[in-house]
Amino acid sequence: MTTEEQVAADAGYRQYAIEEYHPHAEPYYVPTGDEVELFEAAFASKVPVLLKGPTGCGKTRFVEYMAWKLGRPLTVVKGSGAEGSNEALPLVTVACHEDLTASDLVGRYLLEGESTRWIDGPLTRAVKAGAICYLDEVVEARKDTTVLIHPLTDHRRVLPIEKRGQIVEAREGFLLVISYNPGYQSALKDLKHSTRQRFISIEFTHPRKELEAKIIAHESGVAEEIAQDLAKLGEKVRNLREHGLSEGVSTRLLVYVGKLIQRGIPPRRACQVGVVWALTDDLDVQRSIEEVVSSIFE
Amino acid sequence: MTTEEQVAADAGYRQYAIEEYHPHAEPYYVPTGDEVELFEAAFASKVPVLLKGPTGCGKTRFVEYMAWKLGRPLTVVKGSGAEGSNEALPLVTVACHEDLTASDLVGRYLLEGESTRWIDGPLTRAVKAGAICYLDEVVEARKDTTVLIHPLTDHRRVLPIEKRGQIVEAREGFLLVISYNPGYQSALKDLKHSTRQRFISIEFTHPRKELEAKIIAHESGVAEEIAQDLAKLGEKVRNLREHGLSEGVSTRLLVYVGKLIQRGIPPRRACQVGVVWALTDDLDVQRSIEEVVSSIFE
Amino acid sequence: MTTEEQVAADAGYRQYAIEEYHPHAEPYYVPTGDEVELFEAAFASKVPVLLKGPTGCGKTRFVEYMAWKLGRPLTVVKGSGAEGSNEALPLVTVACHEDLTASDLVGRYLLEGESTRWIDGPLTRAVKAGAICYLDEVVEARKDTTVLIHPLTDHRRVLPIEKRGQIVEAREGFLLVISYNPGYQSALKDLKHSTRQRFISIEFTHPRKELEAKIIAHESGVAEEIAQDLAKLGEKVRNLREHGLSEGVSTRLLVYVGKLIQRGIPPRRACQVGVVWALTDDLDVQRSIEEVVSSIFE
Amino acid sequence: MTTEEQVAADAGYRQYAIEEYHPHAEPYYVPTGDEVELFEAAFASKVPVLLKGPTGCGKTRFVEYMAWKLGRPLTVVKGSGAEGSNEALPLVTVACHEDLTASDLVGRYLLEGESTRWIDGPLTRAVKAGAICYLDEVVEARKDTTVLIHPLTDHRRVLPIEKRGQIVEAREGFLLVISYNPGYQSALKDLKHSTRQRFISIEFTHPRKELEAKIIAHESGVAEEIAQDLAKLGEKVRNLREHGLSEGVSTRLLVYVGKLIQRGIPPRRACQVGVVWALTDDLDVQRSIEEVVSSIFE
Amino acid sequence: MTTEEQVAADAGYRQYAIEEYHPHAEPYYVPTGDEVELFEAAFASKVPVLLKGPTGCGKTRFVEYMAWKLGRPLTVVKGSGAEGSNEALPLVTVACHEDLTASDLVGRYLLEGESTRWIDGPLTRAVKAGAICYLDEVVEARKDTTVLIHPLTDHRRVLPIEKRGQIVEAREGFLLVISYNPGYQSALKDLKHSTRQRFISIEFTHPRKELEAKIIAHESGVAEEIAQDLAKLGEKVRNLREHGLSEGVSTRLLVYVGKLIQRGIPPRRACQVGVVWALTDDLDVQRSIEEVVSSIFE
Amino acid sequence: MTTEEQVAADAGYRQYAIEEYHPHAEPYYVPTGDEVELFEAAFASKVPVLLKGPTGCGKTRFVEYMAWKLGRPLTVVKGSGAEGSNEALPLVTVACHEDLTASDLVGRYLLEGESTRWIDGPLTRAVKAGAICYLDEVVEARKDTTVLIHPLTDHRRVLPIEKRGQIVEAREGFLLVISYNPGYQSALKDLKHSTRQRFISIEFTHPRKELEAKIIAHESGVAEEIAQDLAKLGEKVRNLREHGLSEGVSTRLLVYVGKLIQRGIPPRRACQVGVVWALTDDLDVQRSIEEVVSSIFE
Repeated sequence: MTTEEQVAADAGYRQYAIEEYHPHAEPYYVPTGDEVELFEAAFASKVPVLLKGPTGCGKTRFVEYMAWKLGRPLTVVKGSGAEGSNEALPLVTVACHEDLTASDLVGRYLLEGESTRWIDGPLTRAVKAGAICYLDEVVEARKDTTVLIHPLTDHRRVLPIEKRGQIVEAREGFLLVISYNPGYQSALKDLKHSTRQRFISIEFTHPRKELEAKIIAHESGVAEEIAQDLAKLGEKVRNLREHGLSEGVSTRLLVYVGKLIQRGIPPRRACQVGVVWALTDDLDVQRSIEEVVSSIFE
Repeated sequence: MTTEEQVAADAGYRQYAIEEYHPHAEPYYVPTGDEVELFEAAFASKVPVLLKGPTGCGKTRFVEYMAWKLGRPLTVVKGSGAEGSNEALPLVTVACHEDLTASDLVGRYLLEGESTRWIDGPLTRAVKAGAICYLDEVVEARKDTTVLIHPLTDHRRVLPIEKRGQIVEAREGFLLVISYNPGYQSALKDLKHSTRQRFISIEFTHPRKELEAKIIAHESGVAEEIAQDLAKLGEKVRNLREHGLSEGVSTRLLVYVGKLIQRGIPPRRACQVGVVWALTDDLDVQRSIEEVVSSIFE
Repeated sequence: MTTEEQVAADAGYRQYAIEEYHPHAEPYYVPTGDEVELFEAAFASKVPVLLKGPTGCGKTRFVEYMAWKLGRPLTVVKGSGAEGSNEALPLVTVACHEDLTASDLVGRYLLEGESTRWIDGPLTRAVKAGAICYLDEVVEARKDTTVLIHPLTDHRRVLPIEKRGQIVEAREGFLLVISYNPGYQSALKDLKHSTRQRFISIEFTHPRKELEAKIIAHESGVAEEIAQDLAKLGEKVRNLREHGLSEGVSTRLLVYVGKLIQRGIPPRRACQVGVVWALTDDLDVQRSIEEVVSSIFE
Repeated sequence: MTTEEQVAADAGYRQYAIEEYHPHAEPYYVPTGDEVELFEAAFASKVPVLLKGPTGCGKTRFVEYMAWKLGRPLTVVKGSGAEGSNEALPLVTVACHEDLTASDLVGRYLLEGESTRWIDGPLTRAVKAGAICYLDEVVEARKDTTVLIHPLTDHRRVLPIEKRGQIVEAREGFLLVISYNPGYQSALKDLKHSTRQRFISIEFTHPRKELEAKIIAHESGVAEEIAQDLAKLGEKVRNLREHGLSEGVSTRLLVYVGKLIQRGIPPRRACQVGVVWALTDDLDVQRSIEEVVSSIFE
Repeated sequence: MTTEEQVAADAGYRQYAIEEYHPHAEPYYVPTGDEVELFEAAFASKVPVLLKGPTGCGKTRFVEYMAWKLGRPLTVVKGSGAEGSNEALPLVTVACHEDLTASDLVGRYLLEGESTRWIDGPLTRAVKAGAICYLDEVVEARKDTTVLIHPLTDHRRVLPIEKRGQIVEAREGFLLVISYNPGYQSALKDLKHSTRQRFISIEFTHPRKELEAKIIAHESGVAEEIAQDLAKLGEKVRNLREHGLSEGVSTRLLVYVGKLIQRGIPPRRACQVGVVWALTDDLDVQRSIEEVVSSIFE
Repeated sequence: MTTEEQVAADAGYRQYAIEEYHPHAEPYYVPTGDEVELFEAAFASKVPVLLKGPTGCGKTRFVEYMAWKLGRPLTVVKGSGAEGSNEALPLVTVACHEDLTASDLVGRYLLEGESTRWIDGPLTRAVKAGAICYLDEVVEARKDTTVLIHPLTDHRRVLPIEKRGQIVEAREGFLLVISYNPGYQSALKDLKHSTRQRFISIEFTHPRKELEAKIIAHESGVAEEIAQDLAKLGEKVRNLREHGLSEGVSTRLLVYVGKLIQRGIPPRRACQVGVVWALTDDLDVQRSIEEVVSSIFE
């Protein structure tokens, strides 16, 4: 345990090196088709993977689950405190945004005392550790970031670190996974074909009603009947999408509603703050959703 | 007391570490509905909260009140001068703006002597201290800032500090609260669904007339009758909104008018500088408001 | 006297710390209404003030005058050379512009020898010194600057210094005053309501003819008759505004004309360079103003 | 072997100096015409080369092949661990993007201890090492980058390093090769004539069906019959281009499909994730491609 | 003489501190009206001056001439090598452009050894030295630059140096002069009224024919007859302005033509390269000018 | 020879200080008119020169030739290895681009050990060395760059180095030469008149057919007959310009074709990669050029 980790422990919070972070337990994930098999085949063939789908449909959870499932005993750095005890693949997640630069991913020099010190960025850490590297909402990133991943996604599997004049070959186990919400797709923010054609694509949708009820019950602790009502609400709200709702309700929000109900908030009020108001500011659309809520929770 | 705090005391001003700042006394807040219960349920379930509402309707005051109400004895850093004496939750407030970067929230390296020193930003301080972190007008912030809070708002509750190659897990007590004024909402500045669907939403409006009169009287010290007149003025001016007034008058401005009246400024003149001129530069709209003022203060 | 001040004195110029600068003598200001009483009431109630009005109508002079009038014995820093001798409130003026950043106002770190040194910006200096802080043309500033002043303008009266992880409470005497020219107002550069509703507003116009003549005579030294002619010119030129002149002539320019006349330039030539050419490059508008000039100075 | 290379070896990954990187074995490349002879003539005459063609048609592979074919015993830097053992020309590849600056290519100063240290960028490394320098998608780069290569592409063959006040003459063997996808060509991103007329141009297209089947079989390991079906699929999908598909399928994606099939994924499902979903999000276009898939894999 | 000045002298070039630079001899300037008297009156009254006029009409030369004419024995810094020998006012000229920042004018910190060193910018140097500061084409500058000069142009005559927390009062002799070409005037680049109304304006045009001939003869050395022909050419070309020529020919170009003629280039050829081709790339406009040339130089 | 030059020599490449670089031998240049005499007259009169003309017509070569022709024994820095041996004027060439800043031309501070070190930029080097400074495609540069050259192009011949607070007078021999392609001319990128009227202009076109054949034969080594065919091709292709070809073929490309033919590539194939494909991606225009090629090389 380093000094800094000791400080963290004393102060009541925990911190990790990015490439050593992984779920504490098996993530709760119920497959909706053959996505697990597809991912396993791609991982075995070193074929990069693109996950397409709407907000909150479970893409992040799926990647965590696959990191767990594909896990093997880690060759850990000595003294890291995690020797042999972990069965998950290391998973490095980066939420992309329009100011994400190549340096944010690859690394940068820091001045330290009488010399500069190089700090590997999360992508370099994943490449060297043989981790799954998950770039969430990759279309949001700046173009230099997108181009950077090209040599990692073809037969070369290398990462050029131009500021150091180096090229690093990805360690066995490294796989690049990116995600993408076609609902946001615009001329400006589309993935270039020269990037896109480097990935196989798995499309995700919201889980079917029965499956979603199971998830809501598991995550929020509400009774099965309420969970089924909430899943029904989810399905109906998503059908409203052509009535001015740009995106359907996520499973996550339905779980939030369940949690509020568990804490004693009346179901209709919980649906109001967790679905109606959370989804839109448009009064007409709010009214349409309220009606759906009333039809389920009287 | 540090050297710097001593300097401040000598010079006649006070300063605090951001994560130790909290109201000196119970904030004056009168609930308008079940917002207190909703917030308590969300806090207990670790569900992030979005507050929607117009300028000056009391969102900031509400968060201060909740920090006070949810308070518990602080585990204070030794020598901070606040041992055990405070019952409020620490509250870290950040007013967002379009140049707010991820580094402004997370932290940055400073050069110091022979090494660089890392300075935690306000979000990191809140995460480590288990504070309520209130991001005011979050839609104003740059996109990298918005994306940054994603892993703090799902089951992971972690903050990646990429410049240090670290991931920090939020301490017990941490809750993310953001605010948002739907009146400003535009295509460019809307909250993305991938962010929005991570929060339950509580909508705020201006307080009803009786309640507002009570607040004005309490805050400005004017007699109850004048306070009622000012609250009536507020209600009527807000009804003018479709006549070219983009936003109604805030409770804060009505309190200002009360204070000027208390200092001897005639009520109609106080309303002119505190409401008419303060709200708009449009001569026609100014005339409409003047008429409302004249109908109340002859 | 510091080494640097000695260098300045030897070289024939004077320099001050920003928070110690104040007018050398009572500023010449003639009230046009109850603006002095309004400002005194606002100062006593700690209500921030917004001054609205056209270019060169005397807003800056008014603030200087109020700093002088509200003055009290300064608690001076030892060795500053101003012990007890000054009756004005310290006045910190910042001319805002579109590249003004939060760091320009709050402060920044400088590298010095083996450590970094923090330099307080003008706003922080005003907050700590209990000065009047005048942000001229505040709508020009970047949005981060505008947001920065929010916690200084409500009940908290605090300035967060995020780069240092600190919060500073404003010292007794601190008041924020901003100015604004509604003539420049545009969709892009309007003050947001969340900012605007934090200030009472005092509207200024050009002084009436008699008063303006008095000011011109006092400032330029011309005979009263010429001063009255110049004030008449000012009034007539301002009436031309709907004929293509975007802004009327300022009192300042009329004073300049008086000064040129005092130095022997013939009145019509002085009006040409000080009013006609100074106001516009449009030949038609120039001709209209020339005619006004000819009708007064034959 | 340097300390750093030892660390890399211990940790299970490999790293190289940029100018020493080259394919480990002869790249698999089947010529489609006289492109090899053209490149050899250009190399011998020191005439720079522009490769035009769609995404994934083999331009990068061709350059690697030429580096291998034109190879000669390297004059290696002592201690680099590669003495005499390598027959390929060094090949420096830079994937261009819109934030690529001149400094990224030429080099920059780093602070180190008591002095600054200059780090050569990839272009400078190629110039000094006499390497083939391949700037992929050069139109994406910023204009300063484009202009930088001008003196390297005429009779001077020099690289000015303005930050150091130096001019470097390219070593024997240096050749500049750039690539360009005319399909992306837009007014904004077109190559300026003053740049374009410094290169001979070789146009590439997708390989003919028989050749592509051979490549797919070789790279994915699928049986020849399946490879022929996949090549047929490629040809047919490319003919769909006028039906809303902005770019045809790359050979790379067909190889991915082959690999998934080798791992047991049924051919139609493999085509769905590797071609249909990978190429487009448009439901109509997806349906058209699905039909092509069904006509080949029943 | 400093080490650096010695190096310069040895290497065959001369260098000066910005605030010590002034013309080596009386600048050749022939007044066209009362501009000299106006400038003297403004200088005596400390009224800032704006010079309006087209390219190359002599604004810069006029300011140099006034610096010479208003000169007085300099209070020189000891050891500067210029003790008492100079009769010109110091003149600090800054050519403004759209990237000119406030720091470029005011100064900046440089790191030096164990501390940072502040370097005064040209405006600060002028303020401290009591120099005439000439900001050429001031509308081109960034807005922060424009705002910076406000407190120097009213009764305060101070320059705030916010990065140092200082305010400097201008030394006796300081005068701000700006220039402006109304021909370039556009909505985007117009001088704001709050800046413009701080200056008297002197309008300049090209000199009349006789005067211009005198200038051309003096500067180029051509015979008077040729000088008169060139001045006639100037006048005629300026009359072409409505035929597609956006700006008339400057006196400077006519002087260049004279110089080429002095070196033996035939007059019509000299006019072609010095006027026709120099003014425009439009073939029709070139032809019109050629005709004017032919009508004068057969 | 410095250490660094030794390293370069050992590694097989050569490097020079920018201001000491010059052609190794007399550049091959055949005058097309009196351009040599015009340049000599301008150089003798210190009149700056603007070269106008299309891509690849020989402007750069002309400047190199003039530097050679106007040469005189260099006053070389001791130990530079070039004592007395060189007859060319030093020639500093800068290829301008839209990110070229004033600092790139003038110089910048570098941190070095305990102090900062100033590095002169290429323009400052040319000013101090009395070199010809050639700014290629100057309209591409940022505006601050353009303004920077103003005081170097009038009677002052000075370069202000504002970051050092210095003014440098150009050494005897210094001449500023800029180039410009009117074909690219656009509203956004036009040279401002205040810059343009500081230069005489020499217009260049492609050489006539006989002269171009001579150049092609000399530079590529092809037989005279083929060179004449290629020159005929050049002439005909340039006449196609109104058929959709934005710019004619440069002499450089015709030389490339000659070189490919010398290496055994059949003439029509060489014309295809060196002219047809090199000039355009438009299939129709390619076909038109192919026809011209076929009419010459059967």
